[in-house]
Amino acid sequence: MARQLVQRVKGTRDFYPEDWEYQKWLAEKFISLGTSFGYQEYEGSILEHMDLYLGKSSEEIVNRQTFSLTDRDGRLLVLRPELTPTLARMVAQREGQTVFPVRWQSYGQFFRYERPQRGRGRAFFQWNIDLLGSESHAADAEIITIACLLFKNLGLTPDHVTIKINDREGLEQLLRTTLDIPHQWIHPLFALVDRMDKMHPSKFHNELEKIGLSENKIDRLDHILKTRDLTPFPWLQQILTQLDLNGVAQYVEPDLKIVRGFDYYTRTVFEAWAKTTLRRSVFGGGRYDNLTVQVGGKRDLPGVGFALGEMAMTELLKEVGLYPEIRTKCADVLVTVFSEDLAEHSVSFARTAREHGISTELYLNPGHRLDRQLKYADRKGIPTAVIIGPDEVHSNAVVVKDLVNRTQRVVARDCFDALWPQLKTNTQATEK
Amino acid sequence: MARQLVQRVKGTRDFYPEDWEYQKWLAEKFISLGTSFGYQEYEGSILEHMDLYLGKSSEEIVNRQTFSLTDRDGRLLVLRPELTPTLARMVAQREGQTVFPVRWQSYGQFFRYERPQRGRGRAFFQWNIDLLGSESHAADAEIITIACLLFKNLGLTPDHVTIKINDREGLEQLLRTTLDIPHQWIHPLFALVDRMDKMHPSKFHNELEKIGLSENKIDRLDHILKTRDLTPFPWLQQILTQLDLNGVAQYVEPDLKIVRGFDYYTRTVFEAWAKTTLRRSVFGGGRYDNLTVQVGGKRDLPGVGFALGEMAMTELLKEVGLYPEIRTKCADVLVTVFSEDLAEHSVSFARTAREHGISTELYLNPGHRLDRQLKYADRKGIPTAVIIGPDEVHSNAVVVKDLVNRTQRVVARDCFDALWPQLKTNTQATEK
Repeated sequence: MARQLVQRVKGTRDFYPEDWEYQKWLAEKFISLGTSFGYQEYEGSILEHMDLYLGKSSEEIVNRQTFSLTDRDGRLLVLRPELTPTLARMVAQREGQTVFPVRWQSYGQFFRYERPQRGRGRAFFQWNIDLLGSESHAADAEIITIACLLFKNLGLTPDHVTIKINDREGLEQLLRTTLDIPHQWIHPLFALVDRMDKMHPSKFHNELEKIGLSENKIDRLDHILKTRDLTPFPWLQQILTQLDLNGVAQYVEPDLKIVRGFDYYTRTVFEAWAKTTLRRSVFGGGRYDNLTVQVGGKRDLPGVGFALGEMAMTELLKEVGLYPEIRTKCADVLVTVFSEDLAEHSVSFARTAREHGISTELYLNPGHRLDRQLKYADRKGIPTAVIIGPDEVHSNAVVVKDLVNRTQRVVARDCFDALWPQLKTNTQATEK
Repeated sequence: MARQLVQRVKGTRDFYPEDWEYQKWLAEKFISLGTSFGYQEYEGSILEHMDLYLGKSSEEIVNRQTFSLTDRDGRLLVLRPELTPTLARMVAQREGQTVFPVRWQSYGQFFRYERPQRGRGRAFFQWNIDLLGSESHAADAEIITIACLLFKNLGLTPDHVTIKINDREGLEQLLRTTLDIPHQWIHPLFALVDRMDKMHPSKFHNELEKIGLSENKIDRLDHILKTRDLTPFPWLQQILTQLDLNGVAQYVEPDLKIVRGFDYYTRTVFEAWAKTTLRRSVFGGGRYDNLTVQVGGKRDLPGVGFALGEMAMTELLKEVGLYPEIRTKCADVLVTVFSEDLAEHSVSFARTAREHGISTELYLNPGHRLDRQLKYADRKGIPTAVIIGPDEVHSNAVVVKDLVNRTQRVVARDCFDALWPQLKTNTQATEK
């Protein structure tokens, strides 16, 4: 009844032990950094009502990239494409009982129906980190500092990455006064600016004309977007001063062309860009000041945060040679089994070893010859084998065979206390 | 624009920090036990092709409990209801390159459209642990030993739980010879036996008659299912001997009525039952000897393993008073900010503290009075506050305030090296 091998779903991934070891290493980099700033871990549901996203996430994501389903009772559900609406829902649920500001982080799975490509899949993990309940620029500076320190902790320098920051509110004010354009033009204008790097300048020009901008206004817009003068942006200046104090200013540059596609950002927005051949935004975030009201919460709760997908980050680490060497965790010891009759001695040794925290495999087939058992340990990369034959049973000892250095020694039961720490091997991922 | 609060999807859960802390504590119990036996962690995709489950998972799950969807290119997908078919797919993909036996474990999320109730949700986590590539009863004994040790490690005794084991193949042979029934009756018969505890004896009797069993055969079946004589079951006897050697026999009892609903089990099957008011199967597993062939793999790969959902386990721990006390991890230290002018000194202290591994919150608003800042730390449960005012800046020191014991002291910069280890607090979950 052999048939074609069932394949995994396009754009999803399986994680074999060596892949998962890396994922855990990376997740730990994220979570431990957040913890050092006092951020608590949480997790939301992967399944959400479609309602939660309507009018909040980017229209592109909701209309074209969700995995949606109707459940057996007719509810319209989606696999979450992002975490922020879930976060808003969770916080709104407990508004009255929460001491703000709240510092929260989460590492979990998300789903978007995009074209799979380098550094982008349809199912991926994201680190989300958010500071809720503070209107201070110090909150924005803290979140951006964490983003910079993540790069630093991973070994990435300002030669590899840069974080471009902007103030959407400040830019809107400047554009409305300088260009004298009405409020309702801002939304389509920002949507265009967000995509301007992806289109030819003449196309950008034409699209601006379609909105209603005159030749003269387009020229002035062009000039504003290129400026490095932050005089009209005191908010950005305050943040930059803080980043300097935090020792991470070298990772950051203001860029008025960064506006972000998500409609819920209200003020600060930022994007991390790879300077390598990846040439794309690695992650982004910003300030959103009305989030819980949008999901039905009672008060305007200000917040700032970012979401970082692991796939783009992994591509970047690979490209610049910072992907860690992963040594897959396998057992520390293989306890061989000499014969059916002597098996109980091996079983007993393995039990004791495990009780001392040693990862211990017991060979399952007493009928196999010893050299076959040792060869198995070798092929698995298990560094030590223990042999308990008739002589050892008689003398109350075991043979400890070092399979890396090809040496062996007899260890008496009286000396087992000294043996246990020697058997533990360090099988973590190691950084370059 | 306030509107009704968007709710979470029925049967799913959110994990606030204290909930997630518990989940991590429980997952660590599972994974560290598996690691002590040499099991490596892996993870599969949450989205799978519907094809993967047809004819392998229980019909109840596939036809009535899946969350299924059609993606934007017309693929029929499901949110995985269980891991075993994914495991089979992953192993089949690498059949040629793998050194068997393979010991693998995974902790991840699953989805079933069941009626949410105590200890059962529609989205839940499961620990899966499997030993692939061995036909020896020693493999079955190892897997069942791990199940018993999990109970032991969680503080559960044989008064709380029991693991019922059976040999489906042995039972089939015994029934076919004793009752003289054809092979094709076995499948509907086992399906009935699997549900017999949930139906009235007279209903069970009627259903057996419908299959075609005579009054006399039904009596004999009844007798066989109740027997404790294991003479016709050498396979079970071998496993029980091993479990005794492994020191866990007190958790296990043979029970010929246990057959499991999953069609892929071929020989050993087992179920852990709570003896508390929960009165249900907490988890189950068994041996499956043809799994990779069923997903299109080339060779008959034997395997044995089990899947354990965290929700039933949590209910059990709560019921018997073994749910751990969770102290949510929050920051070790709050660094207060005396004034805008002196803020840089607080920023600098916080940076250094983090570099020494201390989870440190920096107060965001220099305009707030000191007592308000200290009250915030108190309400958050942060045990220590650091104050840096004009005197401290002048004398190159900080005030360290112990908010638990209401004491404070001045610590000079020269003594910071001794200060760091004192600031680290143990904020883990503690077991009762």
